[in-house]
Amino acid sequence: MNKFFKEHLTVASNASGRKMHVPIYRFKGEEPGPKVYIQSSIHGAEVQGNVVIYHLIEYLKTTKIRGEIVLVPNCNPVGTNIKSGEYTLGRFDPINGQNWNRGYYFKEELINDFVDTVTADDSFEQVKHAFRQQVKKAIEAELSKTWGIGLAPRLNLQLQAQAFDADIVIDLHNGPVATRHIYVPEYAKESAKHFNIPHVIFIPNQFNGALDEAMFCHWWTLADKLSKKFPQQKWQIPVEAFTLEMGSQEVIDFDSGSYDAKGILTYLNYKNSLIDANLKPENINRYAVFLKDYKILYTQEGGIIEYKVKPGQHVKQGEVLAKVLNVDDLDNDNAVSYIYAPEDLIAILHFPSASVLCGTQLYKCFINYFPLP
Amino acid sequence: MNKFFKEHLTVASNASGRKMHVPIYRFKGEEPGPKVYIQSSIHGAEVQGNVVIYHLIEYLKTTKIRGEIVLVPNCNPVGTNIKSGEYTLGRFDPINGQNWNRGYYFKEELINDFVDTVTADDSFEQVKHAFRQQVKKAIEAELSKTWGIGLAPRLNLQLQAQAFDADIVIDLHNGPVATRHIYVPEYAKESAKHFNIPHVIFIPNQFNGALDEAMFCHWWTLADKLSKKFPQQKWQIPVEAFTLEMGSQEVIDFDSGSYDAKGILTYLNYKNSLIDANLKPENINRYAVFLKDYKILYTQEGGIIEYKVKPGQHVKQGEVLAKVLNVDDLDNDNAVSYIYAPEDLIAILHFPSASVLCGTQLYKCFINYFPLP
Amino acid sequence: MNKFFKEHLTVASNASGRKMHVPIYRFKGEEPGPKVYIQSSIHGAEVQGNVVIYHLIEYLKTTKIRGEIVLVPNCNPVGTNIKSGEYTLGRFDPINGQNWNRGYYFKEELINDFVDTVTADDSFEQVKHAFRQQVKKAIEAELSKTWGIGLAPRLNLQLQAQAFDADIVIDLHNGPVATRHIYVPEYAKESAKHFNIPHVIFIPNQFNGALDEAMFCHWWTLADKLSKKFPQQKWQIPVEAFTLEMGSQEVIDFDSGSYDAKGILTYLNYKNSLIDANLKPENINRYAVFLKDYKILYTQEGGIIEYKVKPGQHVKQGEVLAKVLNVDDLDNDNAVSYIYAPEDLIAILHFPSASVLCGTQLYKCFINYFPLP
Amino acid sequence: MNKFFKEHLTVASNASGRKMHVPIYRFKGEEPGPKVYIQSSIHGAEVQGNVVIYHLIEYLKTTKIRGEIVLVPNCNPVGTNIKSGEYTLGRFDPINGQNWNRGYYFKEELINDFVDTVTADDSFEQVKHAFRQQVKKAIEAELSKTWGIGLAPRLNLQLQAQAFDADIVIDLHNGPVATRHIYVPEYAKESAKHFNIPHVIFIPNQFNGALDEAMFCHWWTLADKLSKKFPQQKWQIPVEAFTLEMGSQEVIDFDSGSYDAKGILTYLNYKNSLIDANLKPENINRYAVFLKDYKILYTQEGGIIEYKVKPGQHVKQGEVLAKVLNVDDLDNDNAVSYIYAPEDLIAILHFPSASVLCGTQLYKCFINYFPLP
Repeated sequence: MNKFFKEHLTVASNASGRKMHVPIYRFKGEEPGPKVYIQSSIHGAEVQGNVVIYHLIEYLKTTKIRGEIVLVPNCNPVGTNIKSGEYTLGRFDPINGQNWNRGYYFKEELINDFVDTVTADDSFEQVKHAFRQQVKKAIEAELSKTWGIGLAPRLNLQLQAQAFDADIVIDLHNGPVATRHIYVPEYAKESAKHFNIPHVIFIPNQFNGALDEAMFCHWWTLADKLSKKFPQQKWQIPVEAFTLEMGSQEVIDFDSGSYDAKGILTYLNYKNSLIDANLKPENINRYAVFLKDYKILYTQEGGIIEYKVKPGQHVKQGEVLAKVLNVDDLDNDNAVSYIYAPEDLIAILHFPSASVLCGTQLYKCFINYFPLP
Repeated sequence: MNKFFKEHLTVASNASGRKMHVPIYRFKGEEPGPKVYIQSSIHGAEVQGNVVIYHLIEYLKTTKIRGEIVLVPNCNPVGTNIKSGEYTLGRFDPINGQNWNRGYYFKEELINDFVDTVTADDSFEQVKHAFRQQVKKAIEAELSKTWGIGLAPRLNLQLQAQAFDADIVIDLHNGPVATRHIYVPEYAKESAKHFNIPHVIFIPNQFNGALDEAMFCHWWTLADKLSKKFPQQKWQIPVEAFTLEMGSQEVIDFDSGSYDAKGILTYLNYKNSLIDANLKPENINRYAVFLKDYKILYTQEGGIIEYKVKPGQHVKQGEVLAKVLNVDDLDNDNAVSYIYAPEDLIAILHFPSASVLCGTQLYKCFINYFPLP
Repeated sequence: MNKFFKEHLTVASNASGRKMHVPIYRFKGEEPGPKVYIQSSIHGAEVQGNVVIYHLIEYLKTTKIRGEIVLVPNCNPVGTNIKSGEYTLGRFDPINGQNWNRGYYFKEELINDFVDTVTADDSFEQVKHAFRQQVKKAIEAELSKTWGIGLAPRLNLQLQAQAFDADIVIDLHNGPVATRHIYVPEYAKESAKHFNIPHVIFIPNQFNGALDEAMFCHWWTLADKLSKKFPQQKWQIPVEAFTLEMGSQEVIDFDSGSYDAKGILTYLNYKNSLIDANLKPENINRYAVFLKDYKILYTQEGGIIEYKVKPGQHVKQGEVLAKVLNVDDLDNDNAVSYIYAPEDLIAILHFPSASVLCGTQLYKCFINYFPLP
Repeated sequence: MNKFFKEHLTVASNASGRKMHVPIYRFKGEEPGPKVYIQSSIHGAEVQGNVVIYHLIEYLKTTKIRGEIVLVPNCNPVGTNIKSGEYTLGRFDPINGQNWNRGYYFKEELINDFVDTVTADDSFEQVKHAFRQQVKKAIEAELSKTWGIGLAPRLNLQLQAQAFDADIVIDLHNGPVATRHIYVPEYAKESAKHFNIPHVIFIPNQFNGALDEAMFCHWWTLADKLSKKFPQQKWQIPVEAFTLEMGSQEVIDFDSGSYDAKGILTYLNYKNSLIDANLKPENINRYAVFLKDYKILYTQEGGIIEYKVKPGQHVKQGEVLAKVLNVDDLDNDNAVSYIYAPEDLIAILHFPSASVLCGTQLYKCFINYFPLP
């Protein structure tokens, strides 16, 4: 059995004055290789990633690896424990509404300043190393600002300080009621086929605060700027980062977790993280969209909803997505009404409650999707 | 098509100062017969009853009835609309935690006082009529007390004032993740077979604040006391009241709703509420327990849970009910642990979230159950 | 400086699987004397009691005591940390609405069974000791039931197991927006004058789940039953228990805390808990009511409220308590309306938010109050 | 008495399927003049603005005006009614955490496109009129998008469609526990002295989603771009918009409301909105900062806090802002600790609860402030 290490990272303290910790499991490779960082449950109700990490650990106990693999389950000790009714109110800070996955660090001007310091003589590895130090120093500086920093960014930055050393970062999430899907930066298109995830969203170099973006936007922007400064050199993007959404929140399933762990290991194997592993991606249909074609269908009116289309289902324009009951109209023709697909789509996820106000995210859908060969 | 009437009952006003209404649908019979009162969604997230009422109305539009049938969907306009995260926090008043189904009226001393006024010459119908007036007057008095009354009892009492005229009261609920079950007062055992509900809980004459109890405890206690006072007369309990739990909260399903509506109509037909209806109970296995054998299994520790047993499943003592992931112990033997059935049981419902603290209602179960012939 | 001891009691575990602890500070006396148990913040937002305990400890560091004094601040690690918006949702379990101060243990039949075992030869001290063991054994049994126990009673019972050894129990609370008041069992009327609390509620021997009741109802009922069984003997109630409400929730104030600590020490001195202390109750006006005269004024309509009467204020029947703004009626005479005192009263506390639904506890008031000489 | 009109604008529908309305009060002037739009309580717990509008209406009933004044109290019927515990969870959508004051419309490219269509011959009034139509059309288009729009932006846009006609827009807010302060766009510096608000924040032309920004960023950006395109012409910014923060949330006070109404009327008078009014600004000290100097002090650790500095207080570097109680350390020197002012400051607001996690916004402060002459 491979040796591995458990540590605890203190990320917050609560109103009782108690420290709050995150467990970190660390596997060291026998040979050099990529550094991998995988975390789960930054959104407290999205717990399936913890099961995936459990299965990853079970596998890694007996498989030789290259480089390093760091696994951080249940990485949000605040969000995991905010109950409101029977469910976990884990998507945002209950005090101010801030999404737990929107406070990571990215500043374009740091990259500009850094690029100014790079010379034509610097090797790629030198640049990479120096940039890493620079960003980590900036994160450290944010965390120690005199006037302080909010809870969500504080948590995010402490995790990012761990993650930023990695060449591969995977953030494990779940949708509300969802089918498997994955966010992939456009430059890493090739990697999308090495997971066992049938729905792929290609995202551009735009930072909105999430961990995957906070990783790849740094490296992508750096590569772009260096390529502009030194057009004769080929600056590759050395880091890949993904958000994996593995089914629905509020439930865990060990069998599904095993399947998803295998998918991640297949990708890691493709990336030379594993030694002597024999893992091939599943032969499944994969559909992709660009981010602009990942659409949200909002309700126009409040009411009680039966979701007629399951996540993963392909729907033609005009077909029924949902059936709405209007309790004030049970004596007339408006008792039941329907919500139709505005165009051809694949339903990826839907709202987890039958009771909706107007303006609710009813379905998130792929339109203009295309097969990944 | 039968004529029926829609009214709105004002039950509350909110912080904007706006009145909050409940719709009431009323079918009048062509012949005398029982008065029926059916409400749904006193717990805001338990919305399937609204679909059942929709199907009842569809059926009653074309079926002749005796007596009167009153249908009150979405009877809690406060609880229905309290969102906290994506779910509906509808089981209790968010201000003080009071369960929306525990504030109905019942006072034994009112019954004592009433029994004192009954004479041997009073006919059963006279007694029944007078008692109804008495209780409704008492409810009215509660509602108009100088110092006022809390929101949950206020809502409850306004609904009870509507319901107390009825001979048959059905309160439509859902469990968290649940299979169909029904609460039946012990004296109405015979009626349990006329619904299409496989799990039956027989409840004693004990008032804990719920609507069904607020109905049958009044009549049951009255009959008991009159039988004691006039032992030579046979005082029957003239009213039946039930809580029906039809599957899980937070979802609606029109097909299931149709099935449950048919079950209720079958019972109403058995009670002579319908004219010329041809409805027979389904030939299903029915299992029953006494209330004391409807047990709650609480968690001993917090953690992340996979529910291995589905509601409705029969489980032997010692079999696994749930599998627990302990994220702090992924490096040791405690990574996964199990929760076992403490005795033979039928799982009726389980908690709707994988994330639990210690002391959480993990499963509610039948033990010492027996078949209903 | 007196030596004292800090321990931690594990009372729960959360969804991360982490143990949750309560600190216990224990002072041992130099001479025999009463055992005292004081806890604070069972309701998570009622934090001022923690400051009182801080001041008690500062005092006790340098004062010699008799018996034992046990201090348990922040005794609810769950409730203390449930934020919802900026405030602390600490009055009830967010999962099921159960009030954190209603799950303590009391069963009359245990007392009946115990009284059956007492003989005329048993000394008072023997009876007292045996009863304590009996109740503590029963609490232990509750906590280790096969099917488990809910979170609130679980927490309550673990605290009660600590408290039940004590002769004096004080549970430190706060009202929403409140003036100082204290709940005193009717038999301990004399003690009410030894605190520095101007508003006193005398409560009967009725158990509703709170800690003070869970203490005194046991001993009061025992004394009553023993007096009935052995009418020739004088069975005193050997234990006193109080709920102290020291001002408003959501705030702390070290100066007020010092004042309240001094009041408690004055009472403890009167009870011989302190050696060589020179503490006298303040010369203040004290007003008392019986519990039935501690009335709640509920709103009849929702709206936005200015509280015109401060807690502690004496109000005549018909005087304005509150002024209501009705935003839908700013064009007519209903723009502003008033809520009047239904009878002469002392306002003790009011709701902490201007925004109210109908059925909100607007004010809690003393009526038929009388001075404590 | 002046005639004025009440309408209701339907802005949402809830899970019961009920329409939700906002009242609008409209005063028409006797002479031409500026259009004024004032709303309150977009954050549901910030209710004092409703009282201010009440007083404005009382005043306007008997004062002649120019132009038009539109008053929209309680403009968020969703946020106003979300209770969680006793308080109002009104700052953000409880479903997704979105701040109710961050979903207004602003798109720079619309302005670019518009500026392309302006010719040197167009009069200022023509440009102004055409731009207004353009923006309102864009808002309309957003609201009727096929895939819909979220609840917060939906509400915001409907209000903005009302507000965008106005030359003066005032959004009435409250802080948590706060002193009066006002956000003023830098170009409207002069106007800051005509309110009776002692603390002024000058904000740049940056859009973060709030109503005031959604107003002035449009006009400011337009003026800047037109000035660049037609450097010989002087393009003034024709619209002023402010966020007024009048004390603390969760309370109303009619006297303060009267004072603040008078301040607003004084400003409106200065802007020629009133006829024959004799209103002068109060002679008070006014302090201002630029937005970058309006700093948030975050907690570094969780604990229980006594706020030692009141909003409005001037504090020197190193003075105590807050005193922290650490319940786990009552036996050692860490029992009480202090939080100090990191530099000279004016405290403007503080967190409304004593119980804080790390990363909580403890105080918001002015640094580098200067007097407004």
